[in-house]
Amino acid sequence: MPTKSYLYTPGPTPVPPQVTAAMNRPMIGHRSQEFANLHGEIVEKAKTVFQTANDLYVLTTSGTGGMETAIANTVAPGDRVLALVTGNFGERFAKIASAYGAVVTRLEFPWGTAFDMEQVTETWEKEGPFKLVLATHNETSTGVTNDIASLGNYLKDTEALLLVDAVSSMGAMDIRTDEWHVDIMVTGSQKALMLPPGLALVSVSSKAWPIIEANGGVRFYFSLLEARKSFAKQNTPWTPAVALFYGLDAALDLILTEGLSNVFHRHTRMTAAARAGARALGMELLADDSVASHTVTAIIPNTGVGANDLSGILQKNMGVTFAGGQGQLKGKLLRIGHMGYCSELDVILAIAALEMALYKAGAAVSLGTGVQAAEQALV
Amino acid sequence: MPTKSYLYTPGPTPVPPQVTAAMNRPMIGHRSQEFANLHGEIVEKAKTVFQTANDLYVLTTSGTGGMETAIANTVAPGDRVLALVTGNFGERFAKIASAYGAVVTRLEFPWGTAFDMEQVTETWEKEGPFKLVLATHNETSTGVTNDIASLGNYLKDTEALLLVDAVSSMGAMDIRTDEWHVDIMVTGSQKALMLPPGLALVSVSSKAWPIIEANGGVRFYFSLLEARKSFAKQNTPWTPAVALFYGLDAALDLILTEGLSNVFHRHTRMTAAARAGARALGMELLADDSVASHTVTAIIPNTGVGANDLSGILQKNMGVTFAGGQGQLKGKLLRIGHMGYCSELDVILAIAALEMALYKAGAAVSLGTGVQAAEQALV
Repeated sequence: MPTKSYLYTPGPTPVPPQVTAAMNRPMIGHRSQEFANLHGEIVEKAKTVFQTANDLYVLTTSGTGGMETAIANTVAPGDRVLALVTGNFGERFAKIASAYGAVVTRLEFPWGTAFDMEQVTETWEKEGPFKLVLATHNETSTGVTNDIASLGNYLKDTEALLLVDAVSSMGAMDIRTDEWHVDIMVTGSQKALMLPPGLALVSVSSKAWPIIEANGGVRFYFSLLEARKSFAKQNTPWTPAVALFYGLDAALDLILTEGLSNVFHRHTRMTAAARAGARALGMELLADDSVASHTVTAIIPNTGVGANDLSGILQKNMGVTFAGGQGQLKGKLLRIGHMGYCSELDVILAIAALEMALYKAGAAVSLGTGVQAAEQALV
Repeated sequence: MPTKSYLYTPGPTPVPPQVTAAMNRPMIGHRSQEFANLHGEIVEKAKTVFQTANDLYVLTTSGTGGMETAIANTVAPGDRVLALVTGNFGERFAKIASAYGAVVTRLEFPWGTAFDMEQVTETWEKEGPFKLVLATHNETSTGVTNDIASLGNYLKDTEALLLVDAVSSMGAMDIRTDEWHVDIMVTGSQKALMLPPGLALVSVSSKAWPIIEANGGVRFYFSLLEARKSFAKQNTPWTPAVALFYGLDAALDLILTEGLSNVFHRHTRMTAAARAGARALGMELLADDSVASHTVTAIIPNTGVGANDLSGILQKNMGVTFAGGQGQLKGKLLRIGHMGYCSELDVILAIAALEMALYKAGAAVSLGTGVQAAEQALV
């Protein structure tokens, strides 16, 4: 195994040294004024990234915990929920709702495609109204981005709450929480926010609060009412992961210093390079250009060498880690995460590694072909 | 300026996170048994990398301080010294000897070439004997490696001491301190040893000790006699840079875990890739293949775009830092450092950045050409 390694999983992602350094700051009591000040600043910066004026909470839990928080605070047993499922994480969101006793209508779309607004409106008209609609902004398992703007626009005049999983896109893509009428937006720390796992960020709209207040379903830890009460004093109800808060503050500074529009542009370019590179190598892309995620590219190798074999060569010979397929696409995909602390040059490195792995596996590949296309997409 | 940066200077070099983590271990008193144990282990591991059974000292100083230590302990005013100068650092070694009052015979070779043993023996026969011979193993300013084995073999039956600067090659190239009869071998921490600057490592042969003992030239800090005396108790005469010692221990572990022969092989391959890539881009290499350094490649751009202009584009647009030319080659070279915490894929990234910079500068370059050649050199 090579000593140096290159992590291209779509979460966790590489952590910038500035963030690691911040995480090493001395521990402080979380009931101190110092923590309260830090907490207050983090929330303000995070709201800028979320493009929201809504309330926002930083929870010590994983992205899934953030999704459960969204559901736990809004679902009462028997509630009717419409879940738009475009992959593994849409599936997970639906499962959490079921676990809380919701009656879930699953509207499923073929993996690799985005949800179709026509089918959504049809379902709503036939089977609605629903109390909640669950959607995935960026489906990590397929590399597809869904059109939350249109969904939010459709739902904004209904009584339904729109709950969105943006775990693998917040901080990388242009997500307009308020403009898109998203009532609860969820993200996690270990993706484009460039932190280790352990935090979820959740925004809550004024439309959502009465539902949350009326809801009796939250046992304890995931209570947004407790979070709101504590945040009145810039506190958290339970012990926060202080080192991750330090890191989050530093990561948000990196994002805001680069500038949101520059960050978004960089991710657009990384996607273009990854897709051009993979295509030039004769590979197929799971998602159509029109719905392609800017943070993760899902590739069907299609070159006579299996995804798992390629992954093995990449990891063993070059220290390069891509992700594989999940659920129904297990063993069939290579997924390259390109988000957060990742540049266009890192994408070129990934494509170079991929074409050398193909060559080593004996595939008919002309070295440099993928990189050339990736570079052409960048200049 | 991009947020993420890529450091390809031939020192300092990127520091592995394992080393950074080790450097963050709690401070300990340097007169403690704990430090003595650490010190003892470091010296044993460093001897393995130096391929020596000689004494070895870790000094809290830069590489230049290590070179001065070698000179200060062996040169008395009026001593005759033969300095083989193949570039900027050979020049520096000679200057230090002059500063200590040596009568220095400079045998200079054109920058970009190695020293020529025929001329060395001729000079020795005409003007020798000398008390000391100074040589550079790896001339960082030109990307040239000198044949220390032949030099040592020639000098081994003379009374002259052979002092060698291996600052930018130790830990990357196959350096046989004992087999090559090197009396004082010097290296620094911030090159292939993957540490921040601040330490020099110096080995001392049994042939050198009587000269050192007879020498009265060392004022204080650089005294090898003091270093030897303290090391009898695994101590240092003056306060050591404890955090760098922690880091050195971790870095030596990385090198020895990868395995010396694997490390050497990786550096050979990185050189091959860098040279093939640059050549394919129509650039000229300062050093001939036969004497090419495995840690730094000096490139004469030769493509109508100046070295400084290319450096500017690389840094400003891509966050990539190469080194420029030094001394008589100032403004005429690009030097790519590829040593230590650097892999073959990092070299490909460097070549990709280089060809995109050429393209941006308007040079007639076909994107992918350099990377293709670099990859072909690797598979």
